[in-house]
Parts: sequence; C-alpha cells; structure tokens
Amino acid sequence: MDNFTFCNPTKLVFGKGQIKEIENLIPKNKNLMLTFGGGSVKENGVYNQVVTALKDHDFIEFWGIEPNPKIDTLKKAITIAKKKDINFILSVGGGSCLDGTKLIAAGIKYDGDAWDLVLKGYSADSVDFASVMTLPATGSEMNRGAVISNADTKEKYPFYSRCPVFSVLDPETTYSLPDYQISCGIADTFVHVTEQYLTYPNQSRIMDRWAEGILISLLEIAPKIKNNKKDYDLMSDFMLLATMALNGFIGMGVAQDWATHQIGHVITALHGITHAETLTLLHCGLLKTMKEQKKEKLLQYAERVWNISTGTDDEKIKEALNKTETFFKSLGLATRLGEKNIGNDTINEVANRFTAQGRKAGEGHNITGEVVRQILENCK
Amino acid sequence: MDNFTFCNPTKLVFGKGQIKEIENLIPKNKNLMLTFGGGSVKENGVYNQVVTALKDHDFIEFWGIEPNPKIDTLKKAITIAKKKDINFILSVGGGSCLDGTKLIAAGIKYDGDAWDLVLKGYSADSVDFASVMTLPATGSEMNRGAVISNADTKEKYPFYSRCPVFSVLDPETTYSLPDYQISCGIADTFVHVTEQYLTYPNQSRIMDRWAEGILISLLEIAPKIKNNKKDYDLMSDFMLLATMALNGFIGMGVAQDWATHQIGHVITALHGITHAETLTLLHCGLLKTMKEQKKEKLLQYAERVWNISTGTDDEKIKEALNKTETFFKSLGLATRLGEKNIGNDTINEVANRFTAQGRKAGEGHNITGEVVRQILENCK
Repeated sequence: MDNFTFCNPTKLVFGKGQIKEIENLIPKNKNLMLTFGGGSVKENGVYNQVVTALKDHDFIEFWGIEPNPKIDTLKKAITIAKKKDINFILSVGGGSCLDGTKLIAAGIKYDGDAWDLVLKGYSADSVDFASVMTLPATGSEMNRGAVISNADTKEKYPFYSRCPVFSVLDPETTYSLPDYQISCGIADTFVHVTEQYLTYPNQSRIMDRWAEGILISLLEIAPKIKNNKKDYDLMSDFMLLATMALNGFIGMGVAQDWATHQIGHVITALHGITHAETLTLLHCGLLKTMKEQKKEKLLQYAERVWNISTGTDDEKIKEALNKTETFFKSLGLATRLGEKNIGNDTINEVANRFTAQGRKAGEGHNITGEVVRQILENCK
Repeated sequence: MDNFTFCNPTKLVFGKGQIKEIENLIPKNKNLMLTFGGGSVKENGVYNQVVTALKDHDFIEFWGIEPNPKIDTLKKAITIAKKKDINFILSVGGGSCLDGTKLIAAGIKYDGDAWDLVLKGYSADSVDFASVMTLPATGSEMNRGAVISNADTKEKYPFYSRCPVFSVLDPETTYSLPDYQISCGIADTFVHVTEQYLTYPNQSRIMDRWAEGILISLLEIAPKIKNNKKDYDLMSDFMLLATMALNGFIGMGVAQDWATHQIGHVITALHGITHAETLTLLHCGLLKTMKEQKKEKLLQYAERVWNISTGTDDEKIKEALNKTETFFKSLGLATRLGEKNIGNDTINEVANRFTAQGRKAGEGHNITGEVVRQILENCK
C-alpha cells in the first residue's frame, strides 16, 4: 500500500425530508447565494423545499449553470457575488451546478481571471459552499473536484478546491430524473470506481473489496431501476453508491488511472457529448489497449465482479470486457465512436493535444498521444 | 435505508515514516501534552520518533494510561492539564491511550467531576486532540468514541466526544506487538463489523458489501499474519481494516446491534478480561440466541462471508456460527465462559445489572436482562 493522507470533512445529510435541515446547517449571518442549473428544480419541488427551509435567511439566486459548466457563466456569478459580498454558496441541482459553484466559491477569493484557476488546476482559498444534490453521478457532493469548460477554446479541465461543508441527499429528489440522466449517472459511477480499481493488484485488500462492492451493487440495481424509478430503496442505494464512488473512500493508498476521464473531457470539449457517455465510448477500448499492464487486476475483476471462472487468462479478460460493454449498452449508452459520428479527424485532434501537452496519463504514466491514438482506434 | 447524518473530519496520515509529519500537523503555538500508556513506545522506537519530530514544540508528558483506562488516572491528567493550560493533546499508543485522551480533552473543559461526563455519555466540548496509533484494534483513531472504566464501582461505559484532528498510522509501529494483542485486534475489528452488519437485511447494498469486504479480508490476513508479523503489506491491510471497521463508513443508514459490546464491558468491569476476548466469549452465543431475529442476515453472512451454499437454513446458520467460533479459536482466544472460570454468579450479576438499569439492547431494543441471561447460558 502506498503512503497516503485522507481527509473528507463533508457532512452528509441523507434521506427523505432532509432538505429542511439546511435551515440549521447554514448560519443565518451568512451572505448567501443559491446557485441553480436550468430550472428542473422548480418542476420537481426541490426549489420550493429549499426556499421554504431558508425563509429566515437572506439570499440571492443565480440561475443558469449549464451541464459542463462554462467559465463565462461562472464569471458572471463571480462578479455578482463579489458585489454582494457573498460568503456562502448553496448549490441546488446536479454535479455540474456544484462543480460550477466550486469555481465560483474560489473565484470570489481571486482577483484575476477565474480561468487562471482552472489552468492552475486548484485553489487553496474559497468561500464556504454546500449542496443539495439531486442527481447521483459525479460524486461532487463529497469531494474537492470539479470540471470546468471553456467554450471559446474548446477546453475542459479538472479543478480542485475544498469539499462541500455539507451535502443534502434526498433520494426522492431523483424520482423525476429522465432515464438518460439515470443511465449516465450509473455509468459515471461505474467508471469512477474502475479508474481507481483497474490498475495494479495486491495494493490494498479492503480498497479492492470496496471497489468491487460498488461495481457489483451497480450491476444489481441498474436493471431494477429501469422499471422502478420511484423505488425509494433502489434510489437510495444508487445515490449513496454515487457518492461513495468518488469521495476518496476507495482510493486510499492505491494507484489510480483516470485516463478514460482525461480523454473523455477532450471529446466533450470537441463534440459536446455528455460526460458519462464519453466514458462508455472510451473505457473498454482503453482497457483493451492497456490489458497487459492491467492484466492481473482485470483477471480479478473478471472473477470477482463478473463471476468468470473458466477459460484462459485472455479469454477471461475478453469476456469481462465484453460484459462491461454489454452493460453500458443495456443502459442505452453508446460504446463505439462511430455511433456518435466521431472519426479520424477527432482521433488525430485528441492524440495531437495529448502529444502537444506532453501528457503521460494513466497509473503507469505511459499513456502518451500515440497510446491515446491506439485507444481511440480500439473504440471504433 | 434509514435517514442518517455522517461526518468524519479526521485526517488520516498513513504509511511508513509518517510520524515525522506531526511536526507540521500540530501548530507550534499550542500548549501540548503527550499522553502514553505503559512504556512499550520507548522500546519500539515510536517515542523517539515522536520527540524528534516535536523538537521545536514545547510539550509535557503524561504516562500511565492503562488498558481499559481508569477514571482515576485520567483525572490526574486533567488536573495537570488544567494547571498547564493544555489546549492540544497527542495520544501516542493504542486505543486505550487514545480513549483516555478523549476523556482528558473533554475533562479540561469541564468544571465538575469528570466521571459525570462518562455517566452522561458524551461531551460537546473538548480541547483539540490527535493520535499516533500503534495498535490496530479499536478504531478510536477515526471515531468519536471511547470506553472508560471505574475501578471503585466496577463499571465501564462508552463515552463520545469528537473525532481526533488527525491520526498517524505507520504499520511498521505494529511489528513489535505481542501475538495476543494482534489476535485481540483482529477479533475486535471483526466484531466491530458484525455489530453493524448482522442485524436486518436489505437496508443498504453497499454497507453490506463493505462490511463483508472487511470480514473476508480479516479471514484472509489472520492466518498469514501469524507467521509474518513484519510483513508491511499484511500489517498495512490490518491497520487500515481496523480503522475502516469503526469510523462510520460501514454504518450509514443501517441498524446496529452492539449488545455483545455492552455485555462484554460488564464482563471486563467484573473480571478484568481484555475487551476483545469478551467479544469472542460472547458473540457466537449472542448470535445463537438472537438467530430468529437475525435469520436473513445470518444466511447472507453464511453465504457471502463463509461460502456456505448447501443445507437447510438452520444448518447454514449453524455452520456459519461454528466457523466463526473456530476462527476466534484459531486466534488463540477463548470462546466459552468456562475457559475463563466465569460461572453462574457472574451470569446473575450481569443479567441483574441489565434488568436494574432497564436496558433494552440490540437492534430490536429487546435484549433485556432475561435475554442477557439466555445469551450467557449459550456461551457456557
């Protein structure tokens, strides 16, 4: 096991009816801004629950943080927040809204162009922020990460600041989610786990077991949720799984990959494809390309997650990857670049960006532009 | 899944050579007290590492916090700490040292008799404290709990305050542990998990999988550790498992039992038996007594942890309990009251205490004094 430092101070407030707790969780003397996405929280009753709970708080509202939150939108919020001396932000919505909020919270404390913070990749300074999370997917509700996009330059990069002070997760808020968003959330959660798990073997028994536990649980709930989107227990499982997949709990002392995400961010920046679907497009191709390096762990994955016990090592790995791709397809998500009309031009562009930036991704720091090209060829 | 609130802000600093980090983790302007147990940290080099790291800090030392820390000892520390205006305590040692430190840290902020705090069961106020944890067992390094004893009244009760600010865990500090302490640590960790897991089924898929993951990992490492006490990877697994078993990570939104612990505390208070060995004495008897209530979960335990797939339900449960008892025996720990010369007098005393206090323990709040008597009869 590698040495590590772990700290996750976010207070998780989980369950039905818990949104009302924000009344007590946010000090009344704060200059409060609420941040929102496009308006679905007005339709599903979450907005009303929030403003009812905050009837004794003063707050302003900022609407319009889009999926793959854009720096231009966030800069507008920062300008308003600075004028109003905002020192607490509550994100009400999904992972993109909270990601954008993380950048706004840091931007308030920064005098320059907020895009600098994204290019730098982190900010140690930030006003307090928290979330009412309505979409199980990104794990943003209990981690330091965000992903911010620049529409002008077609760039998309991760950004790190602090964990939310608290996050309220009420599974009932997920009942109105469209099928596609649920599928994306399941796929996103799945690949968050495999990015931390499918690297080297024999690093930590418990991190392996916990990662496998999330994957197995996702495989169990995915087909059930299709016909039971308002099953409280199922949606509770889903919501907690999404949070646990990316809050550091399964990443202690183990190598991590994240190349699928990094390549996926470029695909989203170029084509506007939903984040999770870039993962289902790319992940099996990456695993196929890197299968020698990941061989022992892929065999463990085949055995423990997919119960594959017969065949040669190559056959077991091939079957595990086929089953993974079939699972993604069962969610109604694309698994081949052709389905999204992505061809050689994009492959060249993505590979060239990795080469130009000198990036060496993955747990082995060996996924260069040329390896990215092989990966994308394997995703055709 | 039940509604829940989870927050664990302890910074975990894990790995070889990490003790030196306390230099940066403890602010230099703090009035610092170091707390210790009996002196083993002077023999295994941990004391030297600590004082070297703190060469630019001022601190005082308090020695002699015993196993099952006693209120009289802790009161002495509180008196000294108050005189010296101590506002940060670093526990250097095992779970008992840290448990005692939690009470000292709270006692500094309390004007009355510190035993009041134990009888009350919690304190919201406390000075900052942290730990260098050298014994994987109690999980105290990443939770709010402690257990404090009163030698005069032969009482032992849990007490809750805050989580440590940080805990440093260097697996190399475990190399000098006696076999008995390692066995106790494994058993303690095992029962910490089953107290949270062996209750009702279908509450949370991921909490179940994570609990099972710890149990399976303990079964894997226990026989290996016997002959490899200085294997870094094994001891890393052990140390992280002990922490993860009782830091709230596997207890979110699920019912919990804890009756084995509560009965065990009385046995320790009466007979001075090591905490973990009270658990191995009592746990299988409790599970046997409560097997109807726990039936579905015991079947899941039999199947997933022990790979028992054939037989009637009763046979599967019986086999799982037999295997559990055999596992405890393999650690060299007692599993029957007779082995410790505990007879009917003690059974009467323990049952009578539960009855007199009107306690109703367990996840079903139905373990009264009379049920405690049945449990103890099943442990003969």
